[in-house]
Amino acid sequence: MEYPSERIRKAVEEFARLPGIGKKTALRLALHLLRAPSGDSHRLADALVDLRENTKFCKQCGNLSDEVLCGICSDSKRSNKIVCVVADVRDVFAIERTLTFIGTYHVLGGIINPMEGVSPSSLNIASLIERVRSGEVEEVVFALSGTPEGETTAFHLSRKLEPFQIKVSTIARGAPVGSDLEYVDETTLARSLQNRTEYADPLKKNN
Amino acid sequence: MEYPSERIRKAVEEFARLPGIGKKTALRLALHLLRAPSGDSHRLADALVDLRENTKFCKQCGNLSDEVLCGICSDSKRSNKIVCVVADVRDVFAIERTLTFIGTYHVLGGIINPMEGVSPSSLNIASLIERVRSGEVEEVVFALSGTPEGETTAFHLSRKLEPFQIKVSTIARGAPVGSDLEYVDETTLARSLQNRTEYADPLKKNN
Repeated sequence: MEYPSERIRKAVEEFARLPGIGKKTALRLALHLLRAPSGDSHRLADALVDLRENTKFCKQCGNLSDEVLCGICSDSKRSNKIVCVVADVRDVFAIERTLTFIGTYHVLGGIINPMEGVSPSSLNIASLIERVRSGEVEEVVFALSGTPEGETTAFHLSRKLEPFQIKVSTIARGAPVGSDLEYVDETTLARSLQNRTEYADPLKKNN
Repeated sequence: MEYPSERIRKAVEEFARLPGIGKKTALRLALHLLRAPSGDSHRLADALVDLRENTKFCKQCGNLSDEVLCGICSDSKRSNKIVCVVADVRDVFAIERTLTFIGTYHVLGGIINPMEGVSPSSLNIASLIERVRSGEVEEVVFALSGTPEGETTAFHLSRKLEPFQIKVSTIARGAPVGSDLEYVDETTLARSLQNRTEYADPLKKNN
């Protein structure tokens, strides 16, 4: 595409580097900013540079944080006995939204993927082992995606954690709540049968 | 959503002001920039500010331009006799991609829309009238969207252009090339029947 202005070409190119943003969307965004008040572009630009330059990561779990410890690690109501291992900061968001987890997290910062050059040494694994070695952790829960890469990461971590004789668990795989069974893929359905749990009668108390 | 860092909240908020970007996508973009080399954030930020502060508009047609006249208006191979009126810079891109138009453009910078407070006076209409008054223009082609707002704009412009006794045309409305007829809406189909053109036999020469 030929652009009528070098500046719009540059802005489109930079927007289009972002994941999921193609050239057409990038052009739409750039033209929007051109029409919007000039403050919009400045505030966005400042926020992006400030984000990249000044965001810190929690010293304990690797989550994003403005302080040394993130809001979850510094919350006295959260337990360091259960540590949930996730690949990404977004996974912390996802689990926090369930409002059910009272432990703390450990953000690996990725997942083992030799094809994309992500080896165990480039992930926050050493700091997880340190946390476990300190003796406070009683259970590590893997909340990793159900892909070959996720399974490889879980396997690698389980081997690293073996010497400490703590409980190591993984989130259940199964049919999603609220979905028709016919849309669940075979592997997931097979797993949900294998890992079936005792039926809890909703009308009986104390389940 | 509760963000672990004030900086990520700010970046998400600013990204989410862009059209078609929700909070989830904004978070994905912000987290991507956090992981990407710091140069990416800086280049994007610089491009956005430079775009907003330094982009100029072509003095003749209102298209984006780095010079006084845009690449199309200053191209000696393009004719100022036919002027294609479009709402937006993006429409110039769309028509240029067809590689069939040899005239020049006039970018209105929007479309008459009283509901959104866009009145004729806030569009580049006066400069279009000036171009026509100068005597060089022989035909004005409306390439406006087929919405009530587009029709209103075309109607308003046609009234303004009436005194000059030049040809005023509008792009054909009809069934899209390569589409099944059953998916074409009734109004478009009716219009394509009304405006039917003589069949050109592809096997005969000199059609």
